[in-house]
Amino acid sequence: MDKLGQIYEGKYKRIFKTENESEYLIEYKDDVPVFGIERRYSEGMINNKVTNHFMRLLEEKGIATHYIREVSDNETIIRKLRIFPIEIIIRNVAAGSLVKRFGFAEGKKLSRTILEFSYKDERLGDPYVNKYHIAAMAICSESELEYMEKTALRVNEILSGYMENIGITLVDCKLEFGKDEDGNIFLADEISPESCRLWDSKTGEKLDKDRFRRNTDDVDILEETYYRLIGK
Amino acid sequence: MDKLGQIYEGKYKRIFKTENESEYLIEYKDDVPVFGIERRYSEGMINNKVTNHFMRLLEEKGIATHYIREVSDNETIIRKLRIFPIEIIIRNVAAGSLVKRFGFAEGKKLSRTILEFSYKDERLGDPYVNKYHIAAMAICSESELEYMEKTALRVNEILSGYMENIGITLVDCKLEFGKDEDGNIFLADEISPESCRLWDSKTGEKLDKDRFRRNTDDVDILEETYYRLIGK
Repeated sequence: MDKLGQIYEGKYKRIFKTENESEYLIEYKDDVPVFGIERRYSEGMINNKVTNHFMRLLEEKGIATHYIREVSDNETIIRKLRIFPIEIIIRNVAAGSLVKRFGFAEGKKLSRTILEFSYKDERLGDPYVNKYHIAAMAICSESELEYMEKTALRVNEILSGYMENIGITLVDCKLEFGKDEDGNIFLADEISPESCRLWDSKTGEKLDKDRFRRNTDDVDILEETYYRLIGK
Repeated sequence: MDKLGQIYEGKYKRIFKTENESEYLIEYKDDVPVFGIERRYSEGMINNKVTNHFMRLLEEKGIATHYIREVSDNETIIRKLRIFPIEIIIRNVAAGSLVKRFGFAEGKKLSRTILEFSYKDERLGDPYVNKYHIAAMAICSESELEYMEKTALRVNEILSGYMENIGITLVDCKLEFGKDEDGNIFLADEISPESCRLWDSKTGEKLDKDRFRRNTDDVDILEETYYRLIGK
């Protein structure tokens, strides 16, 4: 698979054109060694393989995703989409900005799942928006937004259920969607310890990016988490 | 009309119990002289009379409001309600926080009306919330929120139309609702140059609180605005 021109580079990912006009290649960056003195695992590999595992799971449950096929430990062929400049954040347990903004107790299970939209504009600090702002800014149509909102809630249910079975609480996650040239909408981006807060259901131990980035003491638990997540 | 115990004091208003168990008296504070060397008009009077004028207009159009009867220049008998701790902000033209948060050009007519909910909690800085936060915080039921949202949009339509006819643009306004003991919901609080941004439709001149509070040079135009608003 030849990578052609790079069309995007973020903190954790690069996206390339491929020979196929309707496909992109996503490369999860491997700059940061994650754990293990021997570098048996890298951040790029974990984000790639965990994301693909969940995208395949969601496809099986009828959710249309950008996933096509994994081509290496940290590279995957995905559908070419125009990504909506909106992040959908789903929260099952209070953490992070929810605690800061609304005074929820950290770790409190929410009586109702919270869904938030954030407008991806770094200059503006990715402000939270609602359906009226989205309409006034003509970011997407009302029916597209409804589809993404409904689908995001379903993705949360599927992922939460899956993780519950492996003893992990999906505290929150952020999702992105994109549209192909025919106007079909697909779940895009990643679903990984990078984009989700994951806590051990019993101990409350943090199993997500904050933990993954620390040091090598945690090799065993993180190796275990990685295998729990990808079901091996 | 005897004022009994005071139950609330804000920056601009006081609320008192009355002899009637289902009624309150609202007093618009008169501390700030507004315009006219002779103090022909005071802020309390303007807020009271403009609010009551609009509440009566809305009642005529079928909107249930807290208004019962005006008892003096700055006092009105209103329904006793439990006010929901939510402000509904409606925006027709970009101004204020919309400009700061989303980079809209000040004065730009919005392609679609924007409605926002703010959770009234000074300690938290009255954060913006959406229907999911409101549900998770059990602030009101889903159907109560839907009623308030729908009604607020209708109030905006009625007020915008009224003001258009008198050459004033309703840039934005904030609305509050309350519930009586039987669970009926009423529009509450005030609709005044204090709670709305009002611009002259032709000149763009500001006719709201910012203007009203300046100095005595503006007596004529403000007297005119007041009479335009109350239809005299």
